[in-house]
Parts: sequence; C-alpha cells; structure tokens
Amino acid sequence: MINAKTLKGFRDFLPSEARKRQYVIDTLKEVFELYGFEPLETPALEYAEIMEGKYGEEGDKLIYKFEDLGKRKVALRYDQTVPLARVVAQYGSAGSPQVLPMPFKRYQIQPVWRAENPQKGRFREFLQCDCDIVGSFSALSDAEVITTAAKSIEKLGFINYKILINDRENLFVFEQEKEPDLEKGIKIIRAVDKLKKIGRDKVVEEVMELELSLKEATDILDTIEKKKPTKRMNDILSCIEKLGIESSKVEFLPTLARGLDYYTSTIFELEIEGYEAGSVCGGGRYDNLIGMFRNEQIPAVGFAFGFDRLIEAMEELNLFPKELSGTKVLVTVFGSELKDKSIEIVSLLRSKNINTELYLDENTKMEKQLKYADQKNIPYVIIIGPNEAQKETVMLKDMRTGEQKEISQSEIFDVIQ
Amino acid sequence: MINAKTLKGFRDFLPSEARKRQYVIDTLKEVFELYGFEPLETPALEYAEIMEGKYGEEGDKLIYKFEDLGKRKVALRYDQTVPLARVVAQYGSAGSPQVLPMPFKRYQIQPVWRAENPQKGRFREFLQCDCDIVGSFSALSDAEVITTAAKSIEKLGFINYKILINDRENLFVFEQEKEPDLEKGIKIIRAVDKLKKIGRDKVVEEVMELELSLKEATDILDTIEKKKPTKRMNDILSCIEKLGIESSKVEFLPTLARGLDYYTSTIFELEIEGYEAGSVCGGGRYDNLIGMFRNEQIPAVGFAFGFDRLIEAMEELNLFPKELSGTKVLVTVFGSELKDKSIEIVSLLRSKNINTELYLDENTKMEKQLKYADQKNIPYVIIIGPNEAQKETVMLKDMRTGEQKEISQSEIFDVIQ
Repeated sequence: MINAKTLKGFRDFLPSEARKRQYVIDTLKEVFELYGFEPLETPALEYAEIMEGKYGEEGDKLIYKFEDLGKRKVALRYDQTVPLARVVAQYGSAGSPQVLPMPFKRYQIQPVWRAENPQKGRFREFLQCDCDIVGSFSALSDAEVITTAAKSIEKLGFINYKILINDRENLFVFEQEKEPDLEKGIKIIRAVDKLKKIGRDKVVEEVMELELSLKEATDILDTIEKKKPTKRMNDILSCIEKLGIESSKVEFLPTLARGLDYYTSTIFELEIEGYEAGSVCGGGRYDNLIGMFRNEQIPAVGFAFGFDRLIEAMEELNLFPKELSGTKVLVTVFGSELKDKSIEIVSLLRSKNINTELYLDENTKMEKQLKYADQKNIPYVIIIGPNEAQKETVMLKDMRTGEQKEISQSEIFDVIQ
Repeated sequence: MINAKTLKGFRDFLPSEARKRQYVIDTLKEVFELYGFEPLETPALEYAEIMEGKYGEEGDKLIYKFEDLGKRKVALRYDQTVPLARVVAQYGSAGSPQVLPMPFKRYQIQPVWRAENPQKGRFREFLQCDCDIVGSFSALSDAEVITTAAKSIEKLGFINYKILINDRENLFVFEQEKEPDLEKGIKIIRAVDKLKKIGRDKVVEEVMELELSLKEATDILDTIEKKKPTKRMNDILSCIEKLGIESSKVEFLPTLARGLDYYTSTIFELEIEGYEAGSVCGGGRYDNLIGMFRNEQIPAVGFAFGFDRLIEAMEELNLFPKELSGTKVLVTVFGSELKDKSIEIVSLLRSKNINTELYLDENTKMEKQLKYADQKNIPYVIIIGPNEAQKETVMLKDMRTGEQKEISQSEIFDVIQ
C-alpha cells in the first residue's frame, strides 16, 4: 500500500495552523491596502528562462525545473521579484492590452519553491509576502514602503520593534579609498554586518583574514561606523516620522548590510524585541532589477516579510487572538425525534452570523458529542433534550469552564457574544 | 533578450482581477466557516505515487510530474480530494502526532495544475474550492453540504439558482434488469444525462447506438424518468428545507448523472439561471475514496465550486460590488513646499482606516497626478495648494462626476463615507 506522507521540506497546515496563517495574511493585506498597495497574482509555473540566471550561482541550483509534456522548460516560482519584473515588462508598456499605471504599488502573497536543504530548518515551500513600489525614484516612496512595513508589524500586535536603516553607499569605503576590488569589498562588508552579533574584535579579526593589517581593518570599521545619514536618507527619515512612526523605533545603522548585489541605495530590516531568530522583514531600493526584461532602468523599492518567522514570533510573544474565527457553537442532537429541534436552533444561530456546527449523527451518545466539541476547541455546546424542547429552552454549556445553564432561545446571543 | 511572457494555459491576475477573486474567496470562506467547516492547506508538491492511478487513464496523463534534485518522483497537486485522503490517513489515526477529530469538516481553496489542452478554453492552473465532510454516513451530512453550497451562492448575490439532486442508484436500471454490463450501463447513463441539453429524441438515438432496440432504449429512459426519491433522499430533502433552503430551489432529477466512477449515492449540481456555460458547483457522496491510503471505508460527502465559472457568472450577472476594497483616495502633492501638508492629510485618512495613496513624486504636474487616479479608478482625489494650506482646507475632487469642492479637513470623512 502507498505510504501516506508529505514530501521532505513540505508541510500540511491543519485547521488550527491554517487559521493562524490566514489571520496574519488578512491583517497584512488590510494594512497593505490601507497604504494603497494593490494585489497581484502570477502563475506557479514560468518558462525556466524567465528565472534562470537571476538568483546567483547558489540560487540557480535551487530552482525546481522540469520539462513539461509539450517539451517546454518550465520552473516553479522561486521568488516574486522576477515575476514582478516580467509583469511590468509585459503589461507596463504603452502597447500592452492591459494598462499598468506607474508607479505600480503591488503586494503579492503566494508560495514559492526552493530545493533547499531542509536539514537547515528551511522549507522547500513557503509563503512570501512582498510589497513593492515600481516606477518611482523619490525618497517619499522609500518612506512609504518602510512605513507600511512598520505599520503592518504594529497591526499584528508587536509593540517593541526596531527599524534598522542604512544606505548601501555608506558601506563601500574600501572600494572608494583604494583600488576598487568589489569582491573583497563585499567580503569586508559581510564581516562588518556581523558587528551586532559577534562584536567588534571578531569583526576586525575577520577583516584581517582578508589580507589586511590590523590598522587597515580597524580603520575600515571606524570609517563605516562614523558615517552619517546621506541627505536622501535624512529626507526618508523625516518622512517616516511624519507618516506616523515614532522616531525612537528607527535607527540609522551604518554597518547594516544586506543583499549587496541586489540593492542600490536604501536598505532596511525590521527586528522584534524578544524574538532572537533574526529580522522578520527586510527590504530596500533596487533600481537595476525590474527593467531586466526591457533593457532599461526601472526604479523599485520594497520589502518582504519572512512569513514563517512572523508566525513563530507571534507564537512566542503570544500575539494570536485567543479565539480565531473558528466554530463558536456545536449544536448536539439528542436523538432522532429531537433532530428537527436541533436543526431549527442551528439555522437560527447561523442566520445571526454565528459560526455553528450541527452534530451530524443523531445516534451518537451525548458524551461523545461533547468530546468532539472539546477536541475541536469549540467554546459552546447546546443541548436540546426532551425537557428543553418542551419548554422552548436550550442547555448551554461553556466548554472552557464546564459550566452549563438552561436559558431561553432568545438569550443565547447575549451569552455567546 | 528573454521574452517576457506567461506560459500557455497560465494566467497573471492584475489588481482588478485579483480583487474580484479575493472577494469571491473571502465570501465563500465566510459561509464555509459559518457552516462549521475548517481550513486545510496541503503542499503543491506530493510524492507522485500519492496521485498516480487515482484519476483514471485520461486524468493520469494530465498530471504534472517530474524528478526532483533528490531523484524523488514528485507531482503537482492535481485535485484536493487525494491530498485530503492522504491527510486523513496521516493524521486521522489514533497514533498520529496531531489529532484530526472525526467527522472532519474541511474546506480547501488552493490552485491545482493539469496539463490540459488549453485550446479547449481550459486552464492549466486554476483555483479549486472544495468543501467536504469526512467520516459521516448520515443523511444530515449530505443536507449540510448541499445547504452550504446553496447558501454560498446566495451570499455571492445569485438569486435564481437551482439545486439538481439525484441518487446514483436511480440510474442503474440497465445493470439491475439485465445481465450486469457496467461499461454499457455507464454509456447509457451518460446519454440519459444529456436529456435537458439535447432533448428526448436525441437521447433515445444515442442509447440505440449502443446496440439497443428503440423499445429497449425508450423503456430505459421511461424507467429512469419515473424514479421517485429514495427514503434517504427524502430525508435529505426535508433537512435541506429545514436548514433554510426554499423547496422551490431544489429539484429531484432522476436523470442527473455525474462522476459515476466516483460517487456512491447522492449526486447534485447547482445551476444559475441566466448563466448558460454549465453548472457552477457539483458534488455528492463518495464513500470509497477517502480510505484509499488505509484500505478501509471512510465515508465522505462534499462539493467543489468551479471558481472560474463562478467569476464569469458574477461578471455576466453584474454581481460584483461597484467598489471593491481598493484605494479610496489619492492625496496629490502640489509641490515640495507643500509635501508635508499632503503627508499630514494622508496620515489622518489612514488613521481613520481609509485606504489612501500618497502621490509619490512632488515634482509631477497636477494633470498627470489626476490622470494616475483616473487610470487606477481611485474615486476621490485631494489637492492641497497654497490657498488650501493657508485656510486649513482641502480641495476634494470626485473622479466619477468630475465635481470638486473646497471643504475643511474634518468634513472629508463625511463626504467620503
């Protein structure tokens, strides 16, 4: 017989998990729409050539690729940025059948697939939540994007968070002061980025390993640490504050580095106090990517939430509402003669928009029906026995306290809501 | 340069389409939860053997299959029933780490992939919306499922619809009265199913082509047409009515046939008056499928909405709300000195939960900013010029009427809402 199991690195989400995911998605969407972002969906499969060569040598190896029945080379969506670039090239030009007004502010929340090594605790299928503004160079667009990320986090209930922000140009000390040696420069920056995590001494040590003297390494770190925000960055910081983010939540961090072969100026990360696994959101400005299918420069700025980290952080900080929308009441069935009475109450509750489940088997012992409600975390159970039916009342049991009381049908709503 | 195009049979959903889809999904979810169904998500990729041999010869050919980097044979989700069977086998047994209480009432709304011939107007990636009850044989569960389908349609705004219902056993006249010849029996039933579409004479003709005399063919059709609902079906019909579906919406149709190698008793379809492309929902009881990975019988009843047909029917009958949640207001920027004033109004509107977009470039001509709002179907535009800034007012323009008036900041909400 075939073994019923999920593929390694893939996950089923049973109702309680699926509900939490839905809650986070709905909350993010609400904020994204409040800030004027619009939804976009792209297909799971693309021509392989659309994705190939876009994610660096390491990334390319992780693309799920195959030949379809029509001998086309196809690939599963690896991220949402390359599909966005394709969409902009396809619909953003004057002659396209559908118009895509610029700037295009879009959000996209779809799964992506990467053939990662799952032993690192990574998944091969995970949800990406991206928000981007395509078509604007303005500092205002950087500020809008960063504000949207911060407000999303606030809406999810996180209070103590920090936005770390930098401009990529602050990092290229080495490149500017000596002969340009980009590869070495990037290695130095990667070491500098670890400052918060491993401390100053270790960073200097790592930089020295790149054939630099102690003095040279220390100088580089000193120079970077002393950098001030650029004029553009000051503009962004001032706009963020006017858009309603407390300045105490924003920190200019000249040693912050991320996606150096990707971002072109602003870079930022969002950290949650008390959640140590890493930043839950990262983003920045990347002006040289979105135009890739049109051979022109199309500016863009955006961010992505790490959805799984977000869920984990919310669990750890206990931020999920106690009762996520699930079923509120189970109406039990006392026996076949009283089935109609139960159906009547069920219809009544549903007509008042109360999520209600009817126990489906009229011949099941009441004890088992109650156990079912308990297993499913349904907070209220209604029992209509012969007495209650005659008196037009119901027995309402609160499954969390175990308390039960006989009430009239019209009282049900007051107690439940 | 790489050609920016989507794969044949696959679709991008730009914001206006994506919004409509989201509206339908949200509405369906709301009803499914009201009726006590819970969300389930399964991975896009499964071991190929999980899916192989489950969809008949024709279906099997349409599965997207390939070998992953670890040489595993994997396949893309072809439907949501087989994954449901896997989930029930994996988590539904006593020893499983996560408990799945039975009956399991789940809904699942995820894309599936089929290598269909797109020339038939079929898509290779489409959304499936399934609702099923696993683990109950009761007539009540059939009634709950049918009611949920009908109430979903009502909630979407369809008024004139019909539920066609039958029991598969009504159809097997041939099998019962002569020597069993299942294949021939199924062919006859397939012809009979076309009664409404092609008329009585054509059906008799088709049946005669199966080597039956005119009398034999007429007799079969007569026999089927005269069938009365079974006792179980009468039970279901009575429960549906008590659950709040008008009896005029329900029609027992003894010639209705669908998924004969799949369903075991109840079968039903949902038709929309004025939408001729076909039924938008189909379902029934299938007691021999869900236990496939455990070699036991696990009863199940459920339905699936044809999501694309639903969208099409809603378009044709004009059922989408005029303003789907998108951006409500664009706040323009008059110039760099007045940028802060615009930001202030934007923050104010957002704090009142009004979806607001800030025009991102302070050096753009007002005409172009207005054109942007028009292209994006944003209903209101706010302009704050030097006069308005001084008087603490705004100019509010209704983009649908072209009307504009100067109002105080506090009046904005009254006009917009």
